[in-house]
Parts: sequence; structure tokens; C-alpha cells
Amino acid sequence: MMDDHIYKLIELTGSSTTSMEDAIQNAVARSSKTIRNMRWFQVVETRGQIENGKVSHWQVILKIGFTLEE
Amino acid sequence: MMDDHIYKLIELTGSSTTSMEDAIQNAVARSSKTIRNMRWFQVVETRGQIENGKVSHWQVILKIGFTLEE
Amino acid sequence: MMDDHIYKLIELTGSSTTSMEDAIQNAVARSSKTIRNMRWFQVVETRGQIENGKVSHWQVILKIGFTLEE
Amino acid sequence: MMDDHIYKLIELTGSSTTSMEDAIQNAVARSSKTIRNMRWFQVVETRGQIENGKVSHWQVILKIGFTLEE
Amino acid sequence: MMDDHIYKLIELTGSSTTSMEDAIQNAVARSSKTIRNMRWFQVVETRGQIENGKVSHWQVILKIGFTLEE
Amino acid sequence: MMDDHIYKLIELTGSSTTSMEDAIQNAVARSSKTIRNMRWFQVVETRGQIENGKVSHWQVILKIGFTLEE
Amino acid sequence: MMDDHIYKLIELTGSSTTSMEDAIQNAVARSSKTIRNMRWFQVVETRGQIENGKVSHWQVILKIGFTLEE
Amino acid sequence: MMDDHIYKLIELTGSSTTSMEDAIQNAVARSSKTIRNMRWFQVVETRGQIENGKVSHWQVILKIGFTLEE
Amino acid sequence: MMDDHIYKLIELTGSSTTSMEDAIQNAVARSSKTIRNMRWFQVVETRGQIENGKVSHWQVILKIGFTLEE
Amino acid sequence: MMDDHIYKLIELTGSSTTSMEDAIQNAVARSSKTIRNMRWFQVVETRGQIENGKVSHWQVILKIGFTLEE
Amino acid sequence: MMDDHIYKLIELTGSSTTSMEDAIQNAVARSSKTIRNMRWFQVVETRGQIENGKVSHWQVILKIGFTLEE
Amino acid sequence: MMDDHIYKLIELTGSSTTSMEDAIQNAVARSSKTIRNMRWFQVVETRGQIENGKVSHWQVILKIGFTLEE
Repeated sequence: MMDDHIYKLIELTGSSTTSMEDAIQNAVARSSKTIRNMRWFQVVETRGQIENGKVSHWQVILKIGFTLEE
Repeated sequence: MMDDHIYKLIELTGSSTTSMEDAIQNAVARSSKTIRNMRWFQVVETRGQIENGKVSHWQVILKIGFTLEE
Repeated sequence: MMDDHIYKLIELTGSSTTSMEDAIQNAVARSSKTIRNMRWFQVVETRGQIENGKVSHWQVILKIGFTLEE
Repeated sequence: MMDDHIYKLIELTGSSTTSMEDAIQNAVARSSKTIRNMRWFQVVETRGQIENGKVSHWQVILKIGFTLEE
Repeated sequence: MMDDHIYKLIELTGSSTTSMEDAIQNAVARSSKTIRNMRWFQVVETRGQIENGKVSHWQVILKIGFTLEE
Repeated sequence: MMDDHIYKLIELTGSSTTSMEDAIQNAVARSSKTIRNMRWFQVVETRGQIENGKVSHWQVILKIGFTLEE
Repeated sequence: MMDDHIYKLIELTGSSTTSMEDAIQNAVARSSKTIRNMRWFQVVETRGQIENGKVSHWQVILKIGFTLEE
Repeated sequence: MMDDHIYKLIELTGSSTTSMEDAIQNAVARSSKTIRNMRWFQVVETRGQIENGKVSHWQVILKIGFTLEE
Repeated sequence: MMDDHIYKLIELTGSSTTSMEDAIQNAVARSSKTIRNMRWFQVVETRGQIENGKVSHWQVILKIGFTLEE
Repeated sequence: MMDDHIYKLIELTGSSTTSMEDAIQNAVARSSKTIRNMRWFQVVETRGQIENGKVSHWQVILKIGFTLEE
Repeated sequence: MMDDHIYKLIELTGSSTTSMEDAIQNAVARSSKTIRNMRWFQVVETRGQIENGKVSHWQVILKIGFTLEE
Repeated sequence: MMDDHIYKLIELTGSSTTSMEDAIQNAVARSSKTIRNMRWFQVVETRGQIENGKVSHWQVILKIGFTLEE
């Protein structure tokens, strides 16, 4: 939050079979299809699924902030 | 959160004159008019209004998660 | 909280053998004996007692807000 | 917590198609198969599943306290 | 939350060089360009930027609730 | 909390059309009609009402601590 | 919370020069002058004052629950 | 948590008529009958019972961590 | 939490010299020796040890949910 | 937090007889005597003192983040 | 927090083999070697170590507030 | 926290273009220039910056505990 803009925050859950960073990148990449001017994210919760005694999916609930254009 | 989809979460307040479950169902029903692929909800806060010494409205603030389509 | 009144909040625990809504109604009904102008409640915590492997009492800790008269 | 006993708390998720109270009763009933002397529960979180625009399952995460026998 | 409407809550960050109240008013004013029937706000977090040993921007993260029309 | 007194805390909501500080002063002023020896307050939550796309009332939920006289 | 009574909770700060238990006992003893049927307490926060490099007063903020008589 | 072991945490409520430290020691002592390799505890909540205007039982809810053996 | 099963949640601390994901996998792998039907995890806290000015162990406290069999 | 710097956060309480913004400015001004490169603050808690039935001092507990120089 | 001073808060962990009060006194005594004008403390978390089925060390994480001199 | 030492905790924000673990390592490495005897860290919050629809910087707010020497 760097200046006098108005930002909106949305909440998403990203998922990945490899890492928590990748789950976040996937959520950000999906959002970039419809939202411009994304500026930051903050993690709300970290979860995941277990299959056959191993973590199969890393899931991160995050908020993304983006500038509302004038 | 069952697989590798990306989910979006929105926050709503539902209301009912009969019960907390009904307040949640009302919020979900209203959302189903514009959102497809809703998967889960989680309760954020439970409140209500009092009139003439009785609870007149049950109000539940909830988050609803739904799949973002590819 | 609908206007420019000053409200006071008190904290109560209501109890019921039938449901959480009923536990709240019981606390509100008991308060109405001594407090006028109650306007809203908010749930702080939900608990209960177990007897013989079943829930015997539903207990809800709630705050009640009422108008302080001029 | 009524006296000088030592209690253990366990965390469960109960589920029901009808109500939150029923989801809690189902978790307590299942626990009574292996645990004696359950005394109280406290709700940790309330969630649920949505199918076809309606809540299909009410899910309550709760802690159950029971007496550790001497 | 005054009746049996369904409300939606959105999260914004407002900014101002003068005060926290002004940061909130700026966020509300920006939202009023696209959202009708806003009813209340609640503060989530208060932050700000410092430049040359003084607060240069007051930033308030808030939620705004508005009625979903039938 | 400055010494070995016993203090009681009460919870109030103050309201103002001008600022958050004024909302707090209004709650403190109303309490001073019936309570002596108030010593401190702490903010629990900050909210407000929106009318016609502007904040119309600032509302602050606060706790007030006062000395219980011997 | 042992049965189907309605309880009220009040919040107090007790103080002691010797220990945290003593600070709680002092708050409970002071309350017993005006409140009957106190049943339990729960600690909200633990603080204290420091004078000359030593803790001079232990201060415990606690809630006390008592039965509302019929 | 001192090395690369895997620890399990359990939650207990200890009770004592004398002090909070004693309530914790009682819970730890009871656990030592069935659990080896306990390493640390952390307090979750502090409560107690009041009888005749005095604290009769100190109750501490705590988590205990212990090493899972290979 | 995908259906009408009853789940139990346990709390563990996993450790790894390489990453937070690996600390979680180690805890899940250790649990799979004695627990079947693990379904999900959620992170409670992330910590670690520092030796010689570097992180030597990543430690994640997590809850694991698994189905209680009929 | 705008780039790849390392920041340190310190916690302060500022005070003012006029407003919450002024209490924050006073804390920032005092810190600027010994700390360079302060970048942002975030409010932790808002409190104040009451004298003669009016708020006499506004007190804000805040964290200040500043760049650690290379 | 008694007047219009600026305070700084630092966070420490004190330890003792005898009691939680003693763990706090040890942290305060250690701080008094380098910090003057300490005024209050507040407990952040209470933990401890277990050896041979008994609590061997009481550990309290606390914040200490002290006046910044002009 | 392994023995009867007194520890101090400081709060930092580390940053990295590659991963959350690397952001933590960077903060620890920077601190090791001026602080000896660091023992553990705990994560307070995880955030990051987004540029051109991708996470450009991972930012972790953490606390670091270190022994205060006698």
C-alpha cells in the first residue's frame, strides 16, 4: 500500500501439487486473467489434502490487493 | 476444497426470522442467482435483532467458496 | 446500531435442552425482565453439556446491546 | 469443568444433513462408542457443503472434554 | 444490519493525507461510484506511511456492507 | 490501572456524526451521569453507518474501566 | 456452567502485591460484597506494574460468571 | 521443540485447590502415567470455580507436547 | 471435509532441515504409520531453530484430520 | 514493505490530549530522533485516560517499520 | 500508561524453576540492568519445560513498557 | 526456549524473490551481523508483492529469539 490509491482486497484459495509458493502463484496467475493492477497478497490460512499418507495438494487461502482505477 | 481448482471466497450476511440454519440457506439461495459452482461456506459471526424482548431476526455472517472456472 | 444513541453491552450465558436458538431466546427473555430497549445480540461462544453420551444442554454465551435512555 | 478432576479434550468434526445441533449430536454419539465420561463440548468452527445452490451438509468442528479416570 | 435483507461485504483500503476518518470517507466515496445501497462499514486495520519522520498517509482497511437487491 | 484498586469494566457503543474521537467522548460523557471514578477506556471495534454514499455516523465500541469504591 | 440457569458475566481487574492468584482472589472477594451466586471466573489478561526494577503489583483482568436468580 | 523429532500435542485441563502452577503440575503428573517423553506445555486458558465468594479450584487448560518414538 | 463422515483432528509438530513443506510431509509420514484415512491438514504455526546465524530446522505445527471408521 | 529490504519493527505507545492521529504523530516524531528510514506504522491498540468524566489523553499502541541499512 | 509520555515496548521470555511470578520477576530484573523507567508488563504467553514427568521450568513471554526520556 | 536463560524477541520482515524460506533466511542472516546467540524464530505473517501478474517478492514477518548474556 504505497500511496493514496484506493485498493480492493479479494480472497482466493490457490492449489498446487508441488509447494505453497506455487499454490499462491497459481491463484495470482488465475486472477491476472480478469484483474489488472494487483499489488500485494497476504496469506490467511495454509491447508492441504492428504492421499495415501502423503500431502497431495498444497492449498493457500490468500487475500490479493489491487488498485481501483479512477 | 477438494482438488486443484482455484476458489474465490465472498462474504455475505443472511437473515431469517426462524433459525440460524435458515439465515445461512437464505444467503446461499440468494447467491445462487448469480454464482455457479458454490462448494462450501464457513460462519464468520452470528448476530441477531431483538424486538419486544424476543429475537426477531437471526443474522449470520458467512463466507462462501466457489470454483473459478477455467 | 442504527443511529446516534449510546448503547450498553452486557454478556450472558443462556441454556436450553432443545437448541442453540432456544438458549439465546432464554437469555433474551430473562434479560427483558429488567432491561428495556434491547436491540441486538452477538454470539461469543457456543458450548454445551454432555450426559450419557448425548448433549443434554446447549449453552450460548452472548452479548446483548440495549439503548441507554437519555 | 466441575471439580478437581483432570480432563482431556479431543477435537472432532461432526456432520449432518439437517442442522448444526444434529452435526454436534452425531460427533458426540460417535465418540461415545469409545470414550466414557464425556462432560462438555465447545464449538471451534461452523462450516458446511453446498450442492446445487443449497446447503447439503452442516459441519461443526468441536472439542469434547471428558474425565480421565484415576 | 437492520432487517431481513441479504448483505454483501467487500474489503477496501482507503487513504488520506489528513486523518483516519478522511481515509474511510475516501474509500466509501470511491465505492459509491459503482455500488448502491451501502449501509455500514467496520474497520479491519489501521496503518499508514511515514516520510521524513512524519505520517504522510493514513490508511484504513475496512469492510463495507451493502444490500443485495432482489 | 495504577495501583491496588479493584476496577470494573463496562462495554458501550458511542456514536457521533463528526469523528471517532467524538463518538468516544459521547459514550464517556453519558457514562459520567451514573458512574464516578472512570479511569481509562480501550477501543474494541470501530464501525459506522453509511447514507447516500457517505459516512453518516461514526460508532466506536469501547470498554471503560472505573474504580470500585471500598 | 452446570445446568439450565442463565448466567451473567462481568469483567473486573484485581490487583495484588504478592501473586496472580491473590489478585484474582481480591477481585472475587470485592465482588462478593454485592453479588451472590458467583460460580466461575476466566482470565482475560495478565498485567502488572513495575517500580524500581521490580514487579510491584500483579494485575489480572478476569470475567466472573454468576447465576441470575429467577 | 529442540531437534528434528516429530511431536504430538494433547490438550488437558488440570485442577488444583492451591495455585495455577499446581493445576498444571497435576495435569502433567496424570499424563506421565501413560505418556513418556513429555517435553513442554503451553497454557491455552486459565479459569476456576468460585464457592462462597472465594476461588475454590484453579483450572488451567494446557497443551502438552511429547516426542513420538520412532 | 467432503461428506457426512465424522473426522478426528490431531495436532503434531513436524521438523525438517530443508523446507516447511518437508516438515509437514515428515509429520504426515510419521502419522501414516499408525493412522489410516488421513484426509487434510491445516497449519497452526510456523517456527524454527537457528544455529550459527542460519535456520537449522524448520518446524511446523499442524492439525491433521482423518475419518473415524464406522 | 516495498522491495527487497530487511525491515525491523518496534512497538511504541504515543499519547496526545487532542486526537488519535496526534498520538501517532507524537510517537513517530519521538522515534525520528534516533531512527532513520522509518517507512510505515500499524495500530496495535487504542486506549486513553479519563479524568473528570472526559477523555484527557488519547493513547495509541503502534508498530513502526524501518529499513535496516546494509 | 499514566500520562503523555512516549513508551517503548520490548518482548522478553523469563524463566524460573519455581513459579510463573518468579519467571516474570527474573525477566524484569534482567532488563533493569540496561533499561531505566520500566513501568508495566503484560503477559503474551505462558509455557514451560517438562522433565521426568514434572514441570522443570516455567517460562513466560511478556512485554515490558518503559518511558522514552526526552 | 530450552533452559533458564532470559531471551529477547525482536520482530523483522525478510524479503526474497525466490521463496518464503529464503525470505526468512535473509532476515536471520541480516540479524546475525549484530546479534549473537539467536535461537529460534516464529512466523507472524506472510505477505508478498505482485508485479505484472506474478509474485515478485516473498515477504515474511517473523520474530527472532536470542539469549541475553549475563
